[in-house]
Order: sequence, then structure tokens, then C-alpha cells
Amino acid sequence: MQPRFEVLASHGAARRGRLTTAHGVIETPAFMPVGTYGTVKAMTPEELEALGAQIVLGNTFHLMLRPGPDIIAAHGGLHGFMHWRRPILTDSGGFQVFSLESLRKITEEGVRFRSPIDGAEVWLAPEDSMDVQLALRSDIAMALDDCTPYPATEVEARESMERSMRWAARSHAHYYAHEPPGGLFGIVQGGTHGALRLASLESLLRLDWPGLAVGGLAVGEPEEERLRVLEELVPHMPADRPRYLMGVGLPRDLIQGVLRGIDLFDCVIPTRHARNGHLFVRGGVINIRNGAYARDLEPIDPSCACYTCRHYTRAYLRHLDRCHEILGSRLATIHNLHFYLNLMRAVRASLADGTFEAFAAAFGGPGGAAADPVA
Amino acid sequence: MQPRFEVLASHGAARRGRLTTAHGVIETPAFMPVGTYGTVKAMTPEELEALGAQIVLGNTFHLMLRPGPDIIAAHGGLHGFMHWRRPILTDSGGFQVFSLESLRKITEEGVRFRSPIDGAEVWLAPEDSMDVQLALRSDIAMALDDCTPYPATEVEARESMERSMRWAARSHAHYYAHEPPGGLFGIVQGGTHGALRLASLESLLRLDWPGLAVGGLAVGEPEEERLRVLEELVPHMPADRPRYLMGVGLPRDLIQGVLRGIDLFDCVIPTRHARNGHLFVRGGVINIRNGAYARDLEPIDPSCACYTCRHYTRAYLRHLDRCHEILGSRLATIHNLHFYLNLMRAVRASLADGTFEAFAAAFGGPGGAAADPVA
Repeated sequence: MQPRFEVLASHGAARRGRLTTAHGVIETPAFMPVGTYGTVKAMTPEELEALGAQIVLGNTFHLMLRPGPDIIAAHGGLHGFMHWRRPILTDSGGFQVFSLESLRKITEEGVRFRSPIDGAEVWLAPEDSMDVQLALRSDIAMALDDCTPYPATEVEARESMERSMRWAARSHAHYYAHEPPGGLFGIVQGGTHGALRLASLESLLRLDWPGLAVGGLAVGEPEEERLRVLEELVPHMPADRPRYLMGVGLPRDLIQGVLRGIDLFDCVIPTRHARNGHLFVRGGVINIRNGAYARDLEPIDPSCACYTCRHYTRAYLRHLDRCHEILGSRLATIHNLHFYLNLMRAVRASLADGTFEAFAAAFGGPGGAAADPVA
Repeated sequence: MQPRFEVLASHGAARRGRLTTAHGVIETPAFMPVGTYGTVKAMTPEELEALGAQIVLGNTFHLMLRPGPDIIAAHGGLHGFMHWRRPILTDSGGFQVFSLESLRKITEEGVRFRSPIDGAEVWLAPEDSMDVQLALRSDIAMALDDCTPYPATEVEARESMERSMRWAARSHAHYYAHEPPGGLFGIVQGGTHGALRLASLESLLRLDWPGLAVGGLAVGEPEEERLRVLEELVPHMPADRPRYLMGVGLPRDLIQGVLRGIDLFDCVIPTRHARNGHLFVRGGVINIRNGAYARDLEPIDPSCACYTCRHYTRAYLRHLDRCHEILGSRLATIHNLHFYLNLMRAVRASLADGTFEAFAAAFGGPGGAAADPVA
């Protein structure tokens, strides 16, 4: 089914909403944990549900290389393959191909690249990305885009954006020609150039999309640039469609996004940081590898209600990390995902009761706390 | 408290028993999952309990090096450190020091060795092993022994065994001088020489032990040798004390041990095999890395009731293994530990209702199935 969106409450640009898909409802603003290879690293689906994850993201690029779309399709799609019964969003592969740099060649038709797994030559056109996402049977698929690097001149950014728009139209035509299991989101490109962003949006809106994403951010640009793009672009995006800021970010980036009207976020930061021993606490991050925690009998955060903080000390977590124990990655991932998902629950509650601006200011607004320091 | 043991039923040499400790009851015969560094690799304590683990083993050698006994003592012992509320048995470190070979020097006083972590010189005497195990507050501690290698001449095995017996007496004196939280088990040594095994047992029985172990097996000797040692030794071990066969083994080795009167087992095989993709099934082992499973939509074992087999296909497990995903190690460990713990449940049930011999024969007796083949 096509995802349906309704706005339940607004507070300035920020919205409290509800996105309904064939596999269930996503209360927004929402953070989507990333499950690159059909698993949110270190976690079972039941654990994700218990933490309050409403939707997970799968990476088309990775899954088309391993295990390949046929094997996933034989399981009835990604839900059956990974035993996740709630909604799934898949990206298009565009961002990962963009990240390969020297291994790829972009043409009007599509992208040719060498597999980082085995060096084999792989071809990805908008139609291929749609075929893979249709095989995965994701609830929300993404159009294939040409992700503009930062920095890019106005000419470079325009050329890239216009290619993305032609690929978006091809993605749309191919996806909806196949009785899709979900809906396709378009992606606004245009780099940090406000006029190009608006042109990209205008181009996309010639077609019908159940949701729109802002792509090409969090690729190295300063925070002010990113926020300016959002401020120039988001007010023009249709208010009745969900808005997804791709690949963002740190906790404060999520708050800043919500303040500017974003509804959906995804990022590998909570799970990747966890495996590197970086644990989120109110006001920052602690590095559990720091020797200062060797004899620390406190939990990561004494005010945190997650499983890890209820049962384990910093000293134990540091010990597990030093010994490269799998349980260390598990406990850290549980804590960091709880931090993100709990933050979004608090954001939704404050939007519902009209206290979001105070909540955001206390968390650290544009003039507030800097990027999370590592203690 | 001193562990207390009662035999509930016998069937030939095999016994159905109950071992009571300060942290709860262990129904025997029992398999003890190994938690080397204060974690059974990849598992939470709640998951172990759900699988039916009644007791876990901690390694004194590893824990004295990382994080060190002081940090564990500051948590009130190993139970508090690792959040495990049921019984804990700790080994003495003797077997691990034995495994270091070139890095160690054994004298009458104790063992000097280089830490495999950082090369630092470490000293371990019976009194040190007891001090560490007292700090860990294990329910069952083990005497420090000199593990005789295989093969060993009668003269070598006697010298090593007699040193173990002197160390056992020193271990006993030191342990019980300290208001211990649990009880100390003695370890019978003597290599594959039956007369030495009996002499070792006689020497140990001059002191009071709440349980006795058979050490120095599963160190490379043929299966017939190991079974012969058990057949010559176990009938002379006190019937009212639990008998622990250290470091053994494959599923069929457990059955063979129970047939000869063994009550307790530990081994890294189920957890280590799991991380290497070797999964236990009725009659053998499958290697999930085998390409034949790439498109296999069956669970590991269609008759298995474990979480992994209820929700995931062989194709998914193979994919996780190929991508080095933590969830792959988790799901494989759950399955293999379920296999071991379920096997011991079936053994106990068959001992209780008098059908154990038929159960053992169907599983593969001495003349039955060979060592588990890898499919």
C-alpha cells in the first residue's frame, strides 16, 4: 500500500505526525535504525521492538551484493529474511555508490562500479535500483539519486541535481509499473545552493510521491550550511507529506531537524559509535575505553532506564570492550539506540503537549551546546 | 556455603543428582557453558537462563589478567560483575598455564609465566589461585593442578600428579582458612595411567572435598584411552560427591561420560563452534559456510525449538556469517547451547524414568556413531 501521512500537531515548523504503511504505523518525528545487511548490527528484531524502533532501514547497495535480491525474494522479501515484522525503508544505493569515488563511473544511463566485496563490475541504473527494492518488498523505497559532493560549484551541483531529477522520473515510472508493495519517496538534491534545491523540489513535484527526502546533506558541509538549506527548502515542501532528512545525525542534529520541519531521520552513528565504545549521555558522549572508567562502578548514565544501565557498570563495559567481547558491542548498542529512540519519544511528547520549543532549547539550540564532546 | 550433593536415581554407573549451592540448585548431569572473561561469549545472562543454563564457568587465569581480581571484588564478586545470579564455578588457572607451554616455568612453589596479553611476568601459586577465586566469590572453586601432558611416561605422569597433590593440599588449606563463599573441588590427575589415577584419588581423599574432578583428559589422548581412565577411576570415586569431567566435550562425549558416572561437564565447543559456523544437529554438525546453504530456506534443524530455528533460515545465517555480523554469532551460539542444554535435559529425564541406556544407545554408544562429522 501507499504510505499515508497525517499531521497530528504543529509547533512552529515542527510537526507531530503519523505515517501508516502495510506493516504498521510510524509515529513521527522518528529515528530509523540502520540495518545495512538485513540486521541492525548486534541486535535481534525483538530487542529493537522492545527499544521502541518503529521502522528500520535496509541498504539496497549492500543487499544487492550480498546475499543478492533473489535470495531475499525467496524469503518473501526483507521482512521474512531478517524476521522483522514492522515497516522497512530501503535506500536506493545512490549514496553508497557516491561514497565509492574512484571505483565508480556515472553516466546518464546509470552507474558502473566495482564491487568492494570481490571487485566484480556491477551496473546500477534507476530501473535496477527499483527492481532490487521491489524484490526486497520494502514499505518505503527511495528513488535513485546522484548524490552531489561537497563542495560543488553551482554548475556542478546543477548538472548533478538535474541528473537526479531525470533518474527520479525513471525510478517513479519503473516502480509504479510493478504493483509495488509500498511507496516511493523522491529525493531533493542541489547541494548547498538554495535556488537549486527549490528547482529540484519543483521538478519532483511534477510527479506524485507519498513522501520526500532531503539528500546530499551530512556529506562534509558545515552545520550552518546544512541548517540554511533546510530553512530555505523545507517551508516549500508539501506539508501533507512526510519529510525525511537522509543520513542525519547526532542527537542535536535531530532536534535541529525537527525544529525545521523534518519528520524522519536515519543514521549509523548510534550503532557504530556503540561498537567503538562511544556512549551517549545527556550533554555528550563518553569513551568507555578511557582508563578513568576501569574501576567505575556507576552505570553509563545513572538516570538511564535501558537494560545496560540497569544491570552493568562502566568498569564491566570497559572490560568487555578491552576483551573484544560480543556482549560489549551488544550492551553499548542497546544503550545508544535507547538514547536515540527515547529522545524521539520525548520530542513527540513535547510536540503533543506544546512544550517542544522549551525542550529543544534545553537540549541545546543553535546557540546552545556544541557538537557532542567525547569525555 | 559448602555445595551439597544428593543422588536422586541411578542407572548402572549413571546418576541423576542435585547439587545445591548458595546461588541455587544444579540438576545433574549438567553441562556448564564457559564464560571465560566474565561473559559466555555473545550471550546475556537472561538468555542463558532462558536456555536452561544452571551454572556457568569463569576462567581464573583470564580474569586475573583482565580486569584483575580487585575490580571484580569491588563488584561483590563475579556474580555482580557479570550480572549472573545463579551458581558459578571457577577453574584454577592450571589448565591455561599448561596450555602456554613455552611461556611458563613450573617449580614446586608455583608457576611463573608471561602474560599473553602484554608479556608481563605473572606468578601463580596454589595460594594465589585461591585468593583470586575467593575474590571472585565463586560457588565452586577448583584446586590448582599441574596438568599432565599427553603422552607422558609413567615417571613423568607420577611426578606431575604428585606435585598436583601437594598443590591440592596447599589449595585446600588456604581456601578453607578464609571463610569461603563456596566449596573447593579436588582434581584427580595421573595421565592415562590407571594406577596413578587411583593413587591420586587416594591422596586427595585424605582431605574433605565437596566434589571431585577428573582433570588432564581431553588433552589429545584417543577416545578409548579417555574412556578406559574413566572406567578404571570413577567406580572408586565417592558416590555421594559430584564428579566433574573437565573440558569435555562433544555431545557424544557427554553421553559417554554420563554412562560412566560423571555428573558435570564444561567445554568451549558449543560456543566456539557457533562462532565458526559449525552448528549441531541430530547426528552431526553442519558448516553454515558451505555454499550449499546459500539458498536453503530451512532452519538449521526443523525439529529444533530454539529461537534461531523458529525464526531464521540457513540462508540468512550463512549470509550473516559471510558479512561477519554479530547477530550471526549470537544466533549460532543460541542454537548450539540449546542443543547441549536440551541434550542434558533429555539425559536427566531418561535417568529419572529409567530409559537412559536406550537413550544413550540411540544417540550413539561406544560402537555407535563416530565423532560428529561436518556436513
